[in-house]
Amino acid sequence: MRSIGVVLFHEFELLDVFGPLEMYGMAPENFEIHMVAENPGEVASRQGPKSVAERGFSEHRQFDILLVPGGRGTRTQVENSALLEWLRGQAQTSEYVTSVCTGSALLARAGVLDGVRATTNKRAFAWATSQSDKVIWEKQARWVEDGRFFTSSGVSAGMDMSLALIAKIQGRESAEEIAVWTEYEWHSEAGWDPFAKIHGLV
Amino acid sequence: MRSIGVVLFHEFELLDVFGPLEMYGMAPENFEIHMVAENPGEVASRQGPKSVAERGFSEHRQFDILLVPGGRGTRTQVENSALLEWLRGQAQTSEYVTSVCTGSALLARAGVLDGVRATTNKRAFAWATSQSDKVIWEKQARWVEDGRFFTSSGVSAGMDMSLALIAKIQGRESAEEIAVWTEYEWHSEAGWDPFAKIHGLV
Repeated sequence: MRSIGVVLFHEFELLDVFGPLEMYGMAPENFEIHMVAENPGEVASRQGPKSVAERGFSEHRQFDILLVPGGRGTRTQVENSALLEWLRGQAQTSEYVTSVCTGSALLARAGVLDGVRATTNKRAFAWATSQSDKVIWEKQARWVEDGRFFTSSGVSAGMDMSLALIAKIQGRESAEEIAVWTEYEWHSEAGWDPFAKIHGLV
Repeated sequence: MRSIGVVLFHEFELLDVFGPLEMYGMAPENFEIHMVAENPGEVASRQGPKSVAERGFSEHRQFDILLVPGGRGTRTQVENSALLEWLRGQAQTSEYVTSVCTGSALLARAGVLDGVRATTNKRAFAWATSQSDKVIWEKQARWVEDGRFFTSSGVSAGMDMSLALIAKIQGRESAEEIAVWTEYEWHSEAGWDPFAKIHGLV
C-alpha cells in the first residue's frame, strides 16, 4: 500500500487532480489518497467547485507519492514559501514525485527538479519554465519520467502519466485494465504530444 | 449564461463530475457551475476525496443544464426517492439533461428517459439498463444525443460528451479550442466506442 499526498491550493485545476485520482482510485488495494493543503478545510478550484483537504502542512506526514497539480493558482503559489518548503520536505523522502500541468513550475521553483528532465503545460510553457533554469525542460512529451520524477504536460496528460506510474508499480496489464474500466483511451507513449506543435514549441 | 446543476451523492465517481466541469470551466463567460446534493455540505466520492455541495434540494432552484454522474453510489441512489423526485423536477424545465456513466441509471429510474435513446457505462450495462425498460438503450455509443438528452458511456466519455454539448451551444471551433487548452484528444464522433466490444456488448 502506497500513500498519495495530493496538494491543493486556491485555484487548483480540477482535472489535474481528479484525472489521476480516478486512475489511482481504481486500485484502492494499492493506493491510499490523502488531500493536503496549507491549512485543512475547503479549497476552491480554478473552476469554482471546492474540495476538502483533510490534512494541513503542519501534520508533517510524509507520503510515498507526491502529486502536484497546476492551475491558475500556481501563479501566486510560486511565491508561497510555506508551500515550496513543504514540497522540498516531501520530495526528500517520497518514492515518486509527480506533477500535472504547471504543477512542475512549483516543483521547479522549490528547487526539487534541479538537474532533472521535466515537462509542463504547453500553453503556459514560457511562464512555467521561467521558474527555474536548472531544470532540463523538454518541449515535446506527454510526460517525462526521470528516475523517481514524473512530470506531465497540461491537464489531461496527468491521466496518461498516472497510468504509466501505475504500470510501473503494478504492471502494464493492470494499468490497461484500469483504462478499460474508465473507458479511457490511454496514450501510453510518453512521446505522444501533438500539443507541442499546436503551441509552436517544435 | 447558462447554469449547470451538478448533483453529488455519497460515492459519486470523481471523473464523471470533474471531467465535464474541466471542459465547461474553460468557458466561464457562458457556464456557471452549481454543486447540489440532497443536503448541502461535504460529499465523499467513491475514491474517498470529498467535494462540497453549496446547495441542497430544498432550495428548489432550477438549472439550465443538469449533470448527473455515476459511481458506486448509484446502486443505493436508485432507491432514494428524494433524489429521483429532484431529478424529475429538474428535467421538467432544464434546457439540457446530461449524464455520465451510470448517472443514466438514475435518470432512467426517475422515469426521465422514458422513450428516449440513451447509453451508459459498458461494464455496468446490464445493471444500469435493468433500471427501466422504457428507455431505448444503445449498446455502442460514446454518447447519445436525443433531443435535449445527452447521456454518455463510462467515466471518461463524459469529457467527450460535454465538448459535444459545448460545440452545440457555442460552436465547434470553441469546443476544439477547449480541447487544445486542456491538451485533450477529443473523440468528437458520438459513434466512437471500442469499449462496447471489449465488454462483449456488440
